[in-house]
Amino acid sequence: MVKKVAIVMGSASDWKVMRPALDVLQELGVDAHAEVVSAHRTPDKMFEFAKNAKSVGFQVVIAGAGGAAHLPGMIASLTTLPVIGVPVKSSQSIDGWDSILSILQMPAGIPVATVALDNAKNAGILAAQILALSDSELSARLEVFRKALQEKVLESRLD
Amino acid sequence: MVKKVAIVMGSASDWKVMRPALDVLQELGVDAHAEVVSAHRTPDKMFEFAKNAKSVGFQVVIAGAGGAAHLPGMIASLTTLPVIGVPVKSSQSIDGWDSILSILQMPAGIPVATVALDNAKNAGILAAQILALSDSELSARLEVFRKALQEKVLESRLD
Amino acid sequence: MVKKVAIVMGSASDWKVMRPALDVLQELGVDAHAEVVSAHRTPDKMFEFAKNAKSVGFQVVIAGAGGAAHLPGMIASLTTLPVIGVPVKSSQSIDGWDSILSILQMPAGIPVATVALDNAKNAGILAAQILALSDSELSARLEVFRKALQEKVLESRLD
Amino acid sequence: MVKKVAIVMGSASDWKVMRPALDVLQELGVDAHAEVVSAHRTPDKMFEFAKNAKSVGFQVVIAGAGGAAHLPGMIASLTTLPVIGVPVKSSQSIDGWDSILSILQMPAGIPVATVALDNAKNAGILAAQILALSDSELSARLEVFRKALQEKVLESRLD
Amino acid sequence: MVKKVAIVMGSASDWKVMRPALDVLQELGVDAHAEVVSAHRTPDKMFEFAKNAKSVGFQVVIAGAGGAAHLPGMIASLTTLPVIGVPVKSSQSIDGWDSILSILQMPAGIPVATVALDNAKNAGILAAQILALSDSELSARLEVFRKALQEKVLESRLD
Amino acid sequence: MVKKVAIVMGSASDWKVMRPALDVLQELGVDAHAEVVSAHRTPDKMFEFAKNAKSVGFQVVIAGAGGAAHLPGMIASLTTLPVIGVPVKSSQSIDGWDSILSILQMPAGIPVATVALDNAKNAGILAAQILALSDSELSARLEVFRKALQEKVLESRLD
Amino acid sequence: MVKKVAIVMGSASDWKVMRPALDVLQELGVDAHAEVVSAHRTPDKMFEFAKNAKSVGFQVVIAGAGGAAHLPGMIASLTTLPVIGVPVKSSQSIDGWDSILSILQMPAGIPVATVALDNAKNAGILAAQILALSDSELSARLEVFRKALQEKVLESRLD
Amino acid sequence: MVKKVAIVMGSASDWKVMRPALDVLQELGVDAHAEVVSAHRTPDKMFEFAKNAKSVGFQVVIAGAGGAAHLPGMIASLTTLPVIGVPVKSSQSIDGWDSILSILQMPAGIPVATVALDNAKNAGILAAQILALSDSELSARLEVFRKALQEKVLESRLD
Repeated sequence: MVKKVAIVMGSASDWKVMRPALDVLQELGVDAHAEVVSAHRTPDKMFEFAKNAKSVGFQVVIAGAGGAAHLPGMIASLTTLPVIGVPVKSSQSIDGWDSILSILQMPAGIPVATVALDNAKNAGILAAQILALSDSELSARLEVFRKALQEKVLESRLD
Repeated sequence: MVKKVAIVMGSASDWKVMRPALDVLQELGVDAHAEVVSAHRTPDKMFEFAKNAKSVGFQVVIAGAGGAAHLPGMIASLTTLPVIGVPVKSSQSIDGWDSILSILQMPAGIPVATVALDNAKNAGILAAQILALSDSELSARLEVFRKALQEKVLESRLD
Repeated sequence: MVKKVAIVMGSASDWKVMRPALDVLQELGVDAHAEVVSAHRTPDKMFEFAKNAKSVGFQVVIAGAGGAAHLPGMIASLTTLPVIGVPVKSSQSIDGWDSILSILQMPAGIPVATVALDNAKNAGILAAQILALSDSELSARLEVFRKALQEKVLESRLD
Repeated sequence: MVKKVAIVMGSASDWKVMRPALDVLQELGVDAHAEVVSAHRTPDKMFEFAKNAKSVGFQVVIAGAGGAAHLPGMIASLTTLPVIGVPVKSSQSIDGWDSILSILQMPAGIPVATVALDNAKNAGILAAQILALSDSELSARLEVFRKALQEKVLESRLD
Repeated sequence: MVKKVAIVMGSASDWKVMRPALDVLQELGVDAHAEVVSAHRTPDKMFEFAKNAKSVGFQVVIAGAGGAAHLPGMIASLTTLPVIGVPVKSSQSIDGWDSILSILQMPAGIPVATVALDNAKNAGILAAQILALSDSELSARLEVFRKALQEKVLESRLD
Repeated sequence: MVKKVAIVMGSASDWKVMRPALDVLQELGVDAHAEVVSAHRTPDKMFEFAKNAKSVGFQVVIAGAGGAAHLPGMIASLTTLPVIGVPVKSSQSIDGWDSILSILQMPAGIPVATVALDNAKNAGILAAQILALSDSELSARLEVFRKALQEKVLESRLD
Repeated sequence: MVKKVAIVMGSASDWKVMRPALDVLQELGVDAHAEVVSAHRTPDKMFEFAKNAKSVGFQVVIAGAGGAAHLPGMIASLTTLPVIGVPVKSSQSIDGWDSILSILQMPAGIPVATVALDNAKNAGILAAQILALSDSELSARLEVFRKALQEKVLESRLD
Repeated sequence: MVKKVAIVMGSASDWKVMRPALDVLQELGVDAHAEVVSAHRTPDKMFEFAKNAKSVGFQVVIAGAGGAAHLPGMIASLTTLPVIGVPVKSSQSIDGWDSILSILQMPAGIPVATVALDNAKNAGILAAQILALSDSELSARLEVFRKALQEKVLESRLD
């Protein structure tokens, strides 16, 4: 079966930050594929990946990168699929500011749906919310997921 | 006919920044509705709007706000529809930093798809990209739109 | 007896930062109640809490949150009680800048009395200073508290 | 009759920013007194003002200053009345960052209730919210004020 | 004759900032070519340009861009020619911080020689300094240029 | 014998940062006195200290503080002696930005000679440079000190 | 007669910011000399100036510069006279942050007495305070100057 | 044989950050020389080094420094060789911001080719890219180096 969400990241070292995107999608019953694609070190692979993303059946791309993070924006420039960007506070980043600004501040015409620093889980949830627009079962699972989130907070106790 | 995208903003003074979202959606053939909904000054209206957004037929919500910008995040907490946040560099904002950070940095569980400062046009395009996943005609129009963007750059000349 | 100060926070993990608010209020003889209320994950509870805060007898609300910290501002939008905001430098925060700006930069009409980053103790003292305006015994205890603070500094020695 | 709120500022040039504090208090029926008191250029006057603020009948002090803004914090160190600080983005300020940080980041023991940059109106409203705790008529006027704020937003139209 | 320096920029609107690079190169007797190449709106053209830059005879590439400025870094990832990046403080930029960080903070392996914000003149001079390593006449002209700079300062008078 | 330099700090916990000021002054043969004086917790002591600093024979005051650091500026407002400010990156500080800005950004009329973050050693050296203007022996010792600094660097080897 | 204070700046365009240093020194009866000395464009002149500053009779050097502002620090490295640095918010500066940080953050051993952004007046006053340590008449004039400052504030009226 | 690249740094403690510049140059077959040269503590040595760099046969200078980092810019002011600056996030630096801004923001006329924070490896690669313009064997080695970089990413696997 074709996977609907592609999760790409600039380096294998980003995997510990990006993995929650895959985990939450699996928890929500959405198949996803994860892979290393570097805008700077494998630009050809990045071009090919982004140009073919739509035709191979992906519906949403989640891209994580740190420092001068060009991966989400470059993929967005090569496809009209929605691209979700995850700024990664990598060791090469200045407290995450470079990661955030170089993903968020895209020029008019080429949006990247940016989520919070290191918050790959939210990228996964956002992808699911997008896919749920035409998948009523996923939509129902998202409502359950949201309720569970709420329940967990309601049950939390201060010692 | 039901409109698919809701565009809300914290104040009528944000309209000059937010209008390009409506304009680009119309250009792409997507019906959208624009309205003032303030998280801080009309919290009840905001609650009602967000809780009913899905049932009245909206599929994507675009929310713009400046300063301590709570509107996008609060709407996102009250619906499982995708919410796109537009940080507005209003007169009350500190060069836009407050607007960006208070929209972007949502906690795990409740994503807001944040676009660049004052870039409502990109919010409109992102909404269309999301809707195009189940609307092949819109998808085709987006490809044409993207081509036109490219052509305009290719034709630009330095004097 | 009705407690006069409500201390709320977005997550149980904020409790280690927020507890000094409760501690200093107890030291000053002011009854306070602490509870987890998340603007984003339990918005209904937050609405209900804020709307009823005045009628159930609270006089001051202390709210702590981190990242895109909407709790203090949203409570302030739902009550006319004074709301004191504590920016929490949580793990999801960008060095606390997001927490500070999204609590401090409220629009005209809806103030939040913001204290220093992670400084819940000062939130408790400020609440006591407010209550002391109509409680001369508390006012006297605050003067003693202030003196003790001064004494401790006067007695400090450099080795 | 004794005025309940003192509004002080570091320089007469801050008056155009600070005046809305006085205006909103008058609108809410609260008598207030405004005066120039500079922490750096008139430290003796500042000391005397702050030490006597309580005994002459003030209940809340609003202090505005810009740059290395020491006025709110120094007054707070000399009285146990609640002190509300207004960071002023004066010409000598670095985009307001210095004004905000030097007012907000007070050490444990001496809180300043900080409001948004240049938002003296909110300082006035916060002062009224504090005084309303023991003044039911003022409390009612605040509810009306809040409603009016809401109505104005509800009536706003996008052209 | 083949031009040795290529000056590219993301948008024709960057030309007023980038023109001094061309001007100073001409002043130093270095032929240069200027063109609009957008990483985001014309990614194919950008790829082709960067991949061929070396074979068509360019020796240095100067690339200017603003906001989420990916052009310099993406070109650097596609050629081993030295790439000089000019952060442009465009209207879409947050005071230039995004432009600087998304050009400067490149990952290990793919350097971009970044110059000061909006300082295309320095990009031109740096390109000339690089070319002068194997062009003794250019090297001599650079020494004259530097002397003239010095003379101008030595002759400046305070009124 | 009267000590010429006073070293004051807001809290005994600043001593580990401030001690190098005393150490370097002793190394240079300048007597100095160190003491805790808090602007916020012991304002009366601070006033008295600053007002009398000149008459008791101090010639230079070094003041260190962190967070909303008011001590150097308030002392400067109460004496015409040169005041050297040391921004301390204390645990309550936001990466030192608040400490720097609230010491550096003094209004016209009341200067504080600010040195680098946590660099009390430089405060001590600066005090010695000031005193050396009328003490030729100290001036000579400073030249020797400077030479030694240079020698140490000249002798450093890369392994 | 030998002038006691040298005022240097990186460019004649800094003169409008630096002139108040000269003005206030003249007002205080201190002779000063102003001149353009650029660390980057006239490094030889800068070296010669700094190395001879002491022997030609200067007692204090005031140096103003913007952007990557190396002038104050380089002069400080070449003399043991006290050097006062004025960060200039020039057109090439990023809101003054670069000017401040590159003057303030000197390494251990070589202090620069930094004053507020664009605040050359305070540099002049600080120089006078330093010289007054061995000039009782200047010391008296400084006290009068300070009083006048205070009087002006005491007389200011809010319209 | 004459070494083509000089690597200088402000302190021996910068060596652990700067060493990768030497390592990558050796890997690429480029001889380089590394040495401590402090702008502030050994200004004479720095002057002599920079003035003679060209005549002794260096073609590129790599200079690393932290805090108020004047070394790269001062060397650039004393030679017309290309100077590559490495901002070092030393213990004395404010999260690297001061290092970056005081190296990057050079005035028109005197460029420094700045690379990412602590990224000395990229400085070495950039130096090699510059030298490769007139060294076809080095150029070939750079292509191989780039390929290897790419291969390493292509082979990376997510566990």
